[in-house]
Amino acid sequence: MKANRRKFLQQLAVGSGALTLGLPDFVKANDGEETISDSFNGYGSAPRFNMSGYAAPKIDKVKIGIIGLGMRGPGAVNRLSNIEGVEIKALCDKLPERATAAQRYLVNKGLPKAAEYSGENGWKTMIDKEGLDLVYTCTPWDLHTPIAVYAMESGCHVATEVPAALTIENCWKLVDTSERTRKHCMMLENCCYDFFEMLTLNMVRNGMFGELIHAEGAYNHDLLSLNFNKKGYQDMWRLKKNINFNGNLYPTHGLGPIAQCMNINRGDRMDYLVSVSSNDFLMGAEAEKRAQKDEFYKQFAGKNYRGNMNVTTIKTVKGKTMMLQHDVTTPRPYSRIHLLSGTKAFASKYPEPERIAFGERWVKEAELKKLYDTYSPPIIKHVGEIAKKVGGHGGMDFIMDWRLIDCLRNGLPLDQDVYDAAAWSCIVPLSGKSVAKKSTSIDIPDFTRGAWASNKPVNLTLDGGGNTLIRGQK
Amino acid sequence: MKANRRKFLQQLAVGSGALTLGLPDFVKANDGEETISDSFNGYGSAPRFNMSGYAAPKIDKVKIGIIGLGMRGPGAVNRLSNIEGVEIKALCDKLPERATAAQRYLVNKGLPKAAEYSGENGWKTMIDKEGLDLVYTCTPWDLHTPIAVYAMESGCHVATEVPAALTIENCWKLVDTSERTRKHCMMLENCCYDFFEMLTLNMVRNGMFGELIHAEGAYNHDLLSLNFNKKGYQDMWRLKKNINFNGNLYPTHGLGPIAQCMNINRGDRMDYLVSVSSNDFLMGAEAEKRAQKDEFYKQFAGKNYRGNMNVTTIKTVKGKTMMLQHDVTTPRPYSRIHLLSGTKAFASKYPEPERIAFGERWVKEAELKKLYDTYSPPIIKHVGEIAKKVGGHGGMDFIMDWRLIDCLRNGLPLDQDVYDAAAWSCIVPLSGKSVAKKSTSIDIPDFTRGAWASNKPVNLTLDGGGNTLIRGQK
Repeated sequence: MKANRRKFLQQLAVGSGALTLGLPDFVKANDGEETISDSFNGYGSAPRFNMSGYAAPKIDKVKIGIIGLGMRGPGAVNRLSNIEGVEIKALCDKLPERATAAQRYLVNKGLPKAAEYSGENGWKTMIDKEGLDLVYTCTPWDLHTPIAVYAMESGCHVATEVPAALTIENCWKLVDTSERTRKHCMMLENCCYDFFEMLTLNMVRNGMFGELIHAEGAYNHDLLSLNFNKKGYQDMWRLKKNINFNGNLYPTHGLGPIAQCMNINRGDRMDYLVSVSSNDFLMGAEAEKRAQKDEFYKQFAGKNYRGNMNVTTIKTVKGKTMMLQHDVTTPRPYSRIHLLSGTKAFASKYPEPERIAFGERWVKEAELKKLYDTYSPPIIKHVGEIAKKVGGHGGMDFIMDWRLIDCLRNGLPLDQDVYDAAAWSCIVPLSGKSVAKKSTSIDIPDFTRGAWASNKPVNLTLDGGGNTLIRGQK
Repeated sequence: MKANRRKFLQQLAVGSGALTLGLPDFVKANDGEETISDSFNGYGSAPRFNMSGYAAPKIDKVKIGIIGLGMRGPGAVNRLSNIEGVEIKALCDKLPERATAAQRYLVNKGLPKAAEYSGENGWKTMIDKEGLDLVYTCTPWDLHTPIAVYAMESGCHVATEVPAALTIENCWKLVDTSERTRKHCMMLENCCYDFFEMLTLNMVRNGMFGELIHAEGAYNHDLLSLNFNKKGYQDMWRLKKNINFNGNLYPTHGLGPIAQCMNINRGDRMDYLVSVSSNDFLMGAEAEKRAQKDEFYKQFAGKNYRGNMNVTTIKTVKGKTMMLQHDVTTPRPYSRIHLLSGTKAFASKYPEPERIAFGERWVKEAELKKLYDTYSPPIIKHVGEIAKKVGGHGGMDFIMDWRLIDCLRNGLPLDQDVYDAAAWSCIVPLSGKSVAKKSTSIDIPDFTRGAWASNKPVNLTLDGGGNTLIRGQK
């Protein structure tokens, strides 16, 4: 690994004229382990290079390695293999049989098999050997930052499942590494690409909400049985995350779409938050109940479980508010809320159906359809219908993947940059910190180091791109 | 006034054997003015007398004086005059013509005219002269506590519009005065009596939600035009409340119903809160816009307006959470949210229609109807239909009034006691305090002085009552 990184950094220093602007003033060994103390709050105050709006060199055929083929990975293999201009070069999982099983998506489409990697450090070997353009990570959360950092340092762009990091230190590591290496670090926040979210984002952009004042997002999704299922997440890792941490464990699905609408890191930024958690009334009881019938669950009984509901409220420097919720244990219908409240309009997705109002009455179904027809952004009109067929949470996963590949192929900035990844993920540790301190307010770092004031909003056009084809389609 | 109070306290000390238990250890002059500093936090730690569950002597015919006949008062005259066992003895407003106008509700029903009182201190004269059983207050907010305190000290029960108090001092004044005088001080939180709220409260009581973990309430209601309307609230008092105060100005409609569901002050209590306000993006602009056309509005331009959205999150001592919102300026559909999340079920009223789930699917319409049929509490079955005809926010106002009168006539404890009035109202100053201190957590006083642990939940039966007739009905 060290040799590889050294080589990459050499190339970086020698090969690119653009680097004179932003050459790192120090090069830090970083092997993906956490070595920085809890009080760490950023590598430094001066921005090295602004990755927001950064256009990397075009990549005609994107060579991809996909890591983590348990829960989210196989779907990613399926979706990405539907996109022309993609070469899935390698499949990697701790368990070799999972890498082998995922080949079926390639074989079924008549594509060449990918190289297989497995074992605890298979992903490092894969990155070292395969000469990839993009590392696509669907592993358990703890590996997201180490893999992303290693991949960027090895010259790869990174797309990582949510959350990108679980500590403030790791958020800064991602930012610093992306700036230093000039590699994209995109968090795969798929909910940004859902149909209503895209519609409302484009309506906001068209001024139809006036000034946004308040927004809400959530991940309220009953995963109690799944998290306690022995055949669910590998080694029960996701259940374990709910022990000895009390805060919002999974903020990005709710936060990502509203952060884009509010131009967070791109005209405004999150200033501070307060976070309140209920006690746990379900996980401890579930563990006890299971432990009485099954020895295996004794390890989960009597633990300090996270409270069932977490409410986190964020204030931005421009005086807007955002309210996030996280509840993955109570029996209730799924909700990401996605509520937008502006000086001219109002939107709410959950409880479904989605609704829009320009005053005290919701618009009727026909008018909502007209809004979809008029204000769905180009990407939806371009790949929305086929995305529904390819699937992945109703299509949004495929829209996201297609957009990522299309941007890489055409050398366009990605919709989600490393500052988004860091800012949206940092709610995990900061909400925990607030809860631990009787919900006191906690400052949110400015990962853009001041660039938020001038960074441009997410591009909602397909200008300069849109030419990436989908297999079997014209 | 002083003579009157002295006389009343004399009667109190001499006339009632029960008083030996709870005779006040000091009698404090209290003329309804605020004389206590901001740091005041309760008159003392020892409870004098527990008004929760207190059964006052029966009153066969309830003699009522109604104060404040601008916005809410005339409707109250109408509703109360529909109830047998009520004698509306006096009508009072600062403006004499309003008292006169409200007589029509009595005249139309063939009832005797009430005495009329007006002027700045008309209400004091009315209370001094009329020998009332109940003072029913619909004045601007600032008068709620002074009138309630004066009425109780004069031997009257009190029903007061929301919020009952705007400062912590006044919350304690209400508590202390009610305990000392053994007079009810009920806040007229009508939303507790709406049909879905009553249904869900009774379902909670029947264990159908399991343990409640989290609840939400709101007052999100676009009053921007009304508050800026010269012909709206007298002397623009309600608009003025939005200046130089930043917090939740009107928490009780959202909080009351969920507090009853969570047995606040009756098995659990609110421990602390955090509150976040957005900036103002609407009121200042509205004032400027109007001031350019109309000299009158110059007084409202350039003021320090409350933020449009306030989010307040409360933690209870038993580890439950409550989230409250307040937004009376953005253009959006009305919402009190009324969300309940328990270990077994989930409910949500807004956005309408109301819904219930026992897992990830909402129950279908027919099943919801069956729940209404089975679990609507006795009061709804008793007066729900006629209440819809009498009106008042769809019937809930009348259900509330009928229940109040029926309890007074039968000597039953009221559903809302002075501790509820204080606890639900204290969110106003405490949310403001939290916002002013960068949303830090603020402790919520225990107005029950420890009695919350053993106080009984609100009575949902009509046992011992239910015999109060409605005019023109059998």
